[in-house]
Amino acid sequence: MWLQHQISIQAKTRGFHLIDNDITQQLPQLQNIDSGLLHLFLQHTSASLTINENADPTVRADLEQHFNTFVPENAPYYQHDYEGPDDMPAHIKSSILGCQLTIPISNGQLALGIWQGIYLCEHRNHAGSRRIIATIHGE
Amino acid sequence: MWLQHQISIQAKTRGFHLIDNDITQQLPQLQNIDSGLLHLFLQHTSASLTINENADPTVRADLEQHFNTFVPENAPYYQHDYEGPDDMPAHIKSSILGCQLTIPISNGQLALGIWQGIYLCEHRNHAGSRRIIATIHGE
Amino acid sequence: MWLQHQISIQAKTRGFHLIDNDITQQLPQLQNIDSGLLHLFLQHTSASLTINENADPTVRADLEQHFNTFVPENAPYYQHDYEGPDDMPAHIKSSILGCQLTIPISNGQLALGIWQGIYLCEHRNHAGSRRIIATIHGE
Repeated sequence: MWLQHQISIQAKTRGFHLIDNDITQQLPQLQNIDSGLLHLFLQHTSASLTINENADPTVRADLEQHFNTFVPENAPYYQHDYEGPDDMPAHIKSSILGCQLTIPISNGQLALGIWQGIYLCEHRNHAGSRRIIATIHGE
Repeated sequence: MWLQHQISIQAKTRGFHLIDNDITQQLPQLQNIDSGLLHLFLQHTSASLTINENADPTVRADLEQHFNTFVPENAPYYQHDYEGPDDMPAHIKSSILGCQLTIPISNGQLALGIWQGIYLCEHRNHAGSRRIIATIHGE
Repeated sequence: MWLQHQISIQAKTRGFHLIDNDITQQLPQLQNIDSGLLHLFLQHTSASLTINENADPTVRADLEQHFNTFVPENAPYYQHDYEGPDDMPAHIKSSILGCQLTIPISNGQLALGIWQGIYLCEHRNHAGSRRIIATIHGE
């Protein structure tokens, strides 16, 4: 069984956001899979998908601070700056964190660890909604 | 053919470790796949999976030093520190390196390059064993 | 339907390079897939695959500058340096960016976002050609 579905994530503020519910609510078909994989592909180059701690919001705040420090705005070597100081850092963060995830499906549910959640990492100051292509495959 | 299997990796010291043998010894079913994919999903947020050089142990030591330098302990902006100074850096390293890998299977074997090995990256000082969900799919 | 194919990418200069055409020209079978996934696996440990902006070449130049700054050559803690100063940084960049990508296939085409392109990131000064194992699976 193959299923492909476009998921829309409402515009978020800059930072790291848990989106487990956005994903599972838009994919009720997960329940029909005993064993398989969910692939999530973000169709943008200035935001990211990652998996990290799902409980304490300070983890998400600290991730934002870390990436702002080690992928700085206004680096003297940036040539690509015409969309503002958050433009090029957003592209770099997107390649470091990645725009795609594959997650196992077991017994109708995502087989995430007990502390794992799915993050949308929004790297722009004023982004619109974000689009994810979800591909479910299994039996 | 779909197969899902939980792999347990014995507790490791902090650092980068080759785990090719742990993976292949616990997945004898790889031999039955002519063409397919192995997906490995680490169910933790303070360790990582990556692929890198499989021969010289100094590569693994240098990776540990690099990440300790560029994902420092005790950064002034960390709020999430109640499990100790290795806590928040472990989460950041996990998102940079990632918790999942997909590797092609060809003629019953992982189609790794000649210099490639699978690493478990343990970012905590005193971690327990780690759990990986392996999904094999192929024909 | 499973298809596995070895793609060869001609030697590139050090830096970030768009390879969409290399991929799609060597994989005409993509056209036969209504819904599926393409997995790309680079069999090397000193180059990477990532997805980023496909239009402005300054994005690729800035990525190269950023990684050269934050994964420096000649760091005092490197032990693995016998292939030259670009050796160990290449391994580190490879783990940060990753050596593998999964991309959805929809209606015979890669379902990339309008601004997304596939990059080969060459981290060595004098590399040869690079080998990618492409696995197509779909219906």
